[in-house]
Amino acid sequence: MPRKQQNEDALLGKIWDSFRSSPGRGAGRSVSLGIGDDAALFCPKHGHEIILTCDWFLEGTHFLPKKHPPDAVGWKCLARAVSDIAAMGGAPRCFLLGLALPETRTGRWLDVFLGGLRRASGKLQCALAGGDTTRRDEILINITAVGEVPAGRALLRSGARADDLIYVSGRLGEAELGLQMVRRSAGTASPQDPLTRKHLYPQPRLALGQWLAKKGLASAMMDLSDGLSSDLARLCAASAVGARLEKRKIPQVRTPHLALKHGHHPEQLALHGGDDYELLFTVPPQKAKLLPKSFQGVGLAAIGKITRERDVLLVEENGRESPFTPAGWDPFRKRL
Amino acid sequence: MPRKQQNEDALLGKIWDSFRSSPGRGAGRSVSLGIGDDAALFCPKHGHEIILTCDWFLEGTHFLPKKHPPDAVGWKCLARAVSDIAAMGGAPRCFLLGLALPETRTGRWLDVFLGGLRRASGKLQCALAGGDTTRRDEILINITAVGEVPAGRALLRSGARADDLIYVSGRLGEAELGLQMVRRSAGTASPQDPLTRKHLYPQPRLALGQWLAKKGLASAMMDLSDGLSSDLARLCAASAVGARLEKRKIPQVRTPHLALKHGHHPEQLALHGGDDYELLFTVPPQKAKLLPKSFQGVGLAAIGKITRERDVLLVEENGRESPFTPAGWDPFRKRL
Repeated sequence: MPRKQQNEDALLGKIWDSFRSSPGRGAGRSVSLGIGDDAALFCPKHGHEIILTCDWFLEGTHFLPKKHPPDAVGWKCLARAVSDIAAMGGAPRCFLLGLALPETRTGRWLDVFLGGLRRASGKLQCALAGGDTTRRDEILINITAVGEVPAGRALLRSGARADDLIYVSGRLGEAELGLQMVRRSAGTASPQDPLTRKHLYPQPRLALGQWLAKKGLASAMMDLSDGLSSDLARLCAASAVGARLEKRKIPQVRTPHLALKHGHHPEQLALHGGDDYELLFTVPPQKAKLLPKSFQGVGLAAIGKITRERDVLLVEENGRESPFTPAGWDPFRKRL
Repeated sequence: MPRKQQNEDALLGKIWDSFRSSPGRGAGRSVSLGIGDDAALFCPKHGHEIILTCDWFLEGTHFLPKKHPPDAVGWKCLARAVSDIAAMGGAPRCFLLGLALPETRTGRWLDVFLGGLRRASGKLQCALAGGDTTRRDEILINITAVGEVPAGRALLRSGARADDLIYVSGRLGEAELGLQMVRRSAGTASPQDPLTRKHLYPQPRLALGQWLAKKGLASAMMDLSDGLSSDLARLCAASAVGARLEKRKIPQVRTPHLALKHGHHPEQLALHGGDDYELLFTVPPQKAKLLPKSFQGVGLAAIGKITRERDVLLVEENGRESPFTPAGWDPFRKRL
């Protein structure tokens, strides 16, 4: 419990102080005016487009205060917004923090939360530029992330064409397995556990996204936030194409025995599990040979092809095809 | 109640469709990619700085669904964010809509809300660029507004100097009186009532803010969102100065008899009432003669002077001085 009654200015001051010496401010040389005025000012680079994205991160919907350490809440709320910038092939620059808190969370919880947020800000080179705070019975977070990309270079969802190869980075379903472990844990989840780490501390694929955009290798791209089945359907709809995925090629969790022990099939986790923040992208066939097997230690796997027919199909090892129906995370269908 | 179960994509589609033919899109020529991808893309004007601001607008904290018409909620959530751009002397360009809704609000309530938001978007020339939606038991809104200002021209809170004159636009306390009327109304407030209009449909002072910035007349500026006593204290703190306000010069509501009839003193409304979204600005004495008595029909009143001593004082007609203590809106002290 805080000793004295909070007010909004004191809270803003605490947040701003916490970021004064943040390494993220290096990236923030483009932020010419930060917290403390009516708005922030940001100097764009000449010849660049600005990338804008906002993301909810809400108690009960996206995290559970009894299970998720505040440090991980701070890291993840920014990392997942920045993942949308990675998905455009851009570089993060700054962010706005919308934060609503119960008075009981303005002490230690807030300090540890800001610690995680500050580390993410430094690691992802995304400086705090401003925000808005208010009192609320539950913790509400809304992050607006701002990035840049050379004009005309952004990778959209709508660029996939028939015969393009479909790629994913990393392994799919790891974060969903991590979420299941966190839900079953007795108290707050341990950030040291490698199985829960990917759920608690996602790493946006910034270097990969920027490299694909710079080299002009990908025709379309998005990040995997709601699960492969839901997100691939969106990419296909935006591009007015379909897809044939080869199930055996989809990279699954490294620890299938642990997944099965906890009652989860690695294949189902990979097909529908959310929160991986890996990149899903398509590559024209003539450019596929330029793609390495891995990029900075993260595997790149070709998992299927874009088709002219609009259906999204999943092909079994025996050649049997079935519709690949979206069954990933949707806040209007599922709860945490 | 909606006929079929909502999902997030359907909700995003509804919002996007609602804005397809919006007049706000004219301003949105700078938005090169809108809703439907991982993020939005925005082309900044050369030689301009980007203004970034975000604002909460939450059920129970900032509006009451039983009292506030959804059309006014839509208008006001954008207008108050854009007021922060006016306060910098900038021009709005686009906004991101963070919207969390109960399933029961995805039908008529959402339609009427989007109607008000669309009108504000057109009137304020601020195009919808993107957003994030999710399900929630209460209505949560977070607006990020993006504007532009010629580099180096933005008016900050920190520029006030001793002997500068302090000005406000419009009349203060009107929105607070409107709020009190809305709270007492039996059902949803009538948007036609002139007393409630300023509370329901605030008008950001964009033209005035841009004119002051362009002409280089103001040394400091901010918008009045929490009340004169709270906001002037912030401007003085940012500028490391104090102020002497002459109480009789502060423009009050036009209908003092109605205010008194409802138990509110016009003077108290003007000193501490929030939500007016008028501009508070300071002008160096040698430039004060260049300021008209009104600008585009909105009165401009000199209400006091900036002082070297850091105290903020209120001077009565008889010359008696008293400390002007912040007592405006603070979500950590007051509830709606």
